[in-house]
Amino acid sequence: MSSSEQPLRRVLVTGGAGYIGSHVIYALQETRRYKVISVDNHHNSTPKSLVRVAQLARDNLPADASEHDRDSAEIDAHQCDLTKPDEVRRVFEKYGKGGIWGVVHIAAYKAVGESTEIPLTYYENNVSATVYLLQIMAEFDCTRMVYSSSATVYGTPPVIPIPETTRLQAESPYGKTKVMCETILGDLCAAEPSRWRAISLRYFNPAGAHPSGRIGEDPLGRPGNLLPLLAHMAVGRVKDSTLKVFGNDYPTPDGTCVRDYLHVLDLAKGHLLSLDALEPGSKVFDNCPTEARYKAYNLGKGRGMSVLQIVDAMRKATGFDFKYEIIGRRRGDVPDLTADPALAEKELGFTAPADLETMCRDLWNWQTKNPNGYDGPDATSA
Amino acid sequence: MSSSEQPLRRVLVTGGAGYIGSHVIYALQETRRYKVISVDNHHNSTPKSLVRVAQLARDNLPADASEHDRDSAEIDAHQCDLTKPDEVRRVFEKYGKGGIWGVVHIAAYKAVGESTEIPLTYYENNVSATVYLLQIMAEFDCTRMVYSSSATVYGTPPVIPIPETTRLQAESPYGKTKVMCETILGDLCAAEPSRWRAISLRYFNPAGAHPSGRIGEDPLGRPGNLLPLLAHMAVGRVKDSTLKVFGNDYPTPDGTCVRDYLHVLDLAKGHLLSLDALEPGSKVFDNCPTEARYKAYNLGKGRGMSVLQIVDAMRKATGFDFKYEIIGRRRGDVPDLTADPALAEKELGFTAPADLETMCRDLWNWQTKNPNGYDGPDATSA
Ligand SMILES: NC(=O)c1ccc[n+]([C@@H]2O[C@H](COP(=O)([O-])OP(=O)(O)OC[C@H]3O[C@@H](n4cnc5c(N)ncnc54)[C@H](O)[C@@H]3O)[C@@H](O)[C@H]2O)c1
Ligand SMILES: NC(=O)c1ccc[n+]([C@@H]2O[C@H](COP(=O)([O-])OP(=O)(O)OC[C@H]3O[C@@H](n4cnc5c(N)ncnc54)[C@H](O)[C@@H]3O)[C@@H](O)[C@H]2O)c1
Repeated sequence: MSSSEQPLRRVLVTGGAGYIGSHVIYALQETRRYKVISVDNHHNSTPKSLVRVAQLARDNLPADASEHDRDSAEIDAHQCDLTKPDEVRRVFEKYGKGGIWGVVHIAAYKAVGESTEIPLTYYENNVSATVYLLQIMAEFDCTRMVYSSSATVYGTPPVIPIPETTRLQAESPYGKTKVMCETILGDLCAAEPSRWRAISLRYFNPAGAHPSGRIGEDPLGRPGNLLPLLAHMAVGRVKDSTLKVFGNDYPTPDGTCVRDYLHVLDLAKGHLLSLDALEPGSKVFDNCPTEARYKAYNLGKGRGMSVLQIVDAMRKATGFDFKYEIIGRRRGDVPDLTADPALAEKELGFTAPADLETMCRDLWNWQTKNPNGYDGPDATSA
Repeated sequence: MSSSEQPLRRVLVTGGAGYIGSHVIYALQETRRYKVISVDNHHNSTPKSLVRVAQLARDNLPADASEHDRDSAEIDAHQCDLTKPDEVRRVFEKYGKGGIWGVVHIAAYKAVGESTEIPLTYYENNVSATVYLLQIMAEFDCTRMVYSSSATVYGTPPVIPIPETTRLQAESPYGKTKVMCETILGDLCAAEPSRWRAISLRYFNPAGAHPSGRIGEDPLGRPGNLLPLLAHMAVGRVKDSTLKVFGNDYPTPDGTCVRDYLHVLDLAKGHLLSLDALEPGSKVFDNCPTEARYKAYNLGKGRGMSVLQIVDAMRKATGFDFKYEIIGRRRGDVPDLTADPALAEKELGFTAPADLETMCRDLWNWQTKNPNGYDGPDATSA
């Protein structure tokens, strides 16, 4: 470790092997300031993603990298289920009291439809597991968390673009698990303001992949989200090749639903900024020392894109001539979910500069290099 | 079992040894229709209460009681912690699949102030434990629940008296645990409408005790609620004998806070009516078979009593000359929490006929016969 180097800061990432988790780990490693500990039960992911992220980090190192830097490129990965507190405790025990600086808590089940069918499973996995995690963190004097929330906490928002002050009124059990965890975090930070600090990040629609095409979104089964679905269609992984568009009579420019897409690497940077904001002396929290050190931020671009605009952008990126058919509205769909990202910009310095074209290009790069996701060989590895 | 007798219906009561739990068990046993299984970890109670309830039930039996009736007077009591799913599962295993008809889920931590200090403990004990309980119930095909909610779910309600349609906006972590459990129950019943049925009972202010004076409220330490505090003062168990009244400048008739007190035995009857409503063919649920079979009801009298009215009623009941002093408002106190009890009356047939005088008399009877609560001898036992 050269004299200019601070010791690596240990950050535990839950759900690190998933789509967003792997890109967050990438961003953490890119700084060479963190040592990443990953916890994932691979319910919806494969450990291969972690192998690839670490490889990317190693490839980024200069030939004469210090031991400190080389250490920052390795992940301490644990296959571990957050609903089993004993397994989680073992990870913390490895580092002892104060050994882990903070937690980026990304792991969750996330399928809205499924959550309406098996709500208890969602409440257990997303809420009870979070309560356990926080209790274990407290035991080990690890009292900083960045939490993966979602725009779905707003339900059908009364004002577009959506500011953080909007009342939370999630409609699905999935969305309600996010509201509950935010509530719990807020209460915890209020109870022990000199100890706990937490930030909830309300993700809008993360899209794209690392430009290397070595990590990306690899949904099991038919993709639930529009962009991965289009990528699977274009690459020939989806049988029925006609896209169903749910409703074109919404009060939006072209009548189809509007969402706020941001590049997953921009989103990942939001986590770095949030970790900085959790430090002592950060202007986010330390200007008002009597208040609870808890905040929630929208992470979005602040620009809405309609379903048809997305199809068009993917047509350009892939050259594939998507067929679509307009069918009736789908229950539970909200016409427009566009973020007001001003608060995150002002307080965290967050922006999401990558445009839709870049997102589509990076997604398509990932998809063509990995037509079967992580199941195939790492086409681009050295 | 005589030919007119139905087999006893097994109902599991959580928190059965506590104040409300013991009176609910009393009411269940009085019907001689139920076999009570009690689960309590005695965090805030003693098993002695269960011994006394069962004794009351036995004393109520005629000399020539049938075996069926004698069986209904015995409690199968388990010392068991709801945050430990293995312990709970063992109780269900004893009766096997379908062996327990339904659950009255009363156990919870309930101290508002404490919940702001140790919120995680409250979320674990009240929410995570409920998720576990519901999962274990599902495993054992036990899919009926009556749940102890609270008027505190309304926070500061916009309309008095409070109808059930009021938006839920609890202010303390304690109150939020109740909202979360109601939410989870609602989602579960919506997910499996042909399987699950549940009723949340939003208690207003239960007071009084069984008129025998053998069971009653026995708070550990200084009572948090007004009536038990007055009873402790009158019986000489509280050192500083001046009552602090928090604010007399509220927009209420005499300026002090107003609450809706109901007799704990009337409240207990509400649980019997709710169990009936969970039966197939009940008019509460089976008139609209496509909807989720989940409902929430206020249990209150629909009459508000101010702090000073309560002091006055207790003066009459005890003959004790309470000294009180008016001090400033207490943070978090809501001026008026009076129920609109119309829905429970209409759909469940619920009423709370006992008046304040009766509540104070029964409370005082319990307190004088048990100045040290369950720690003393059972003065009234045969
Ligand atoms: N992808 C989106 O569009 C989106 C939008 C808003 C919010 N979010 C939130 O972001 C987070 C990550 O989403 P994602 O798209 O990367 O999903 P993902 O499924 O790819 O990643 C989640 C990871 O968590 C793991 N996990 C789940 N339960 C676990 C448990 N009990 N123990 C250990 N690991 C567990 C999964 O195996 C998976 O690797 C989730 O909290 C999600 O709710 C995602
Ligand atoms: N008393 C009131 O004024 C009031 C008002 C509204 C709602 N409620 C609700 O009614 C219920 C009962 O209240 P009460 O006044 O009888 O309280 P209580 O403390 O007398 O009874 C609760 C019982 O639950 C048990 N318990 C708590 N956690 C447990 C766990 N993890 N495992 C097993 N047992 C556990 C306690 O030991 C206790 O015996 C609670 O849910 C409370 O929130 C009470």
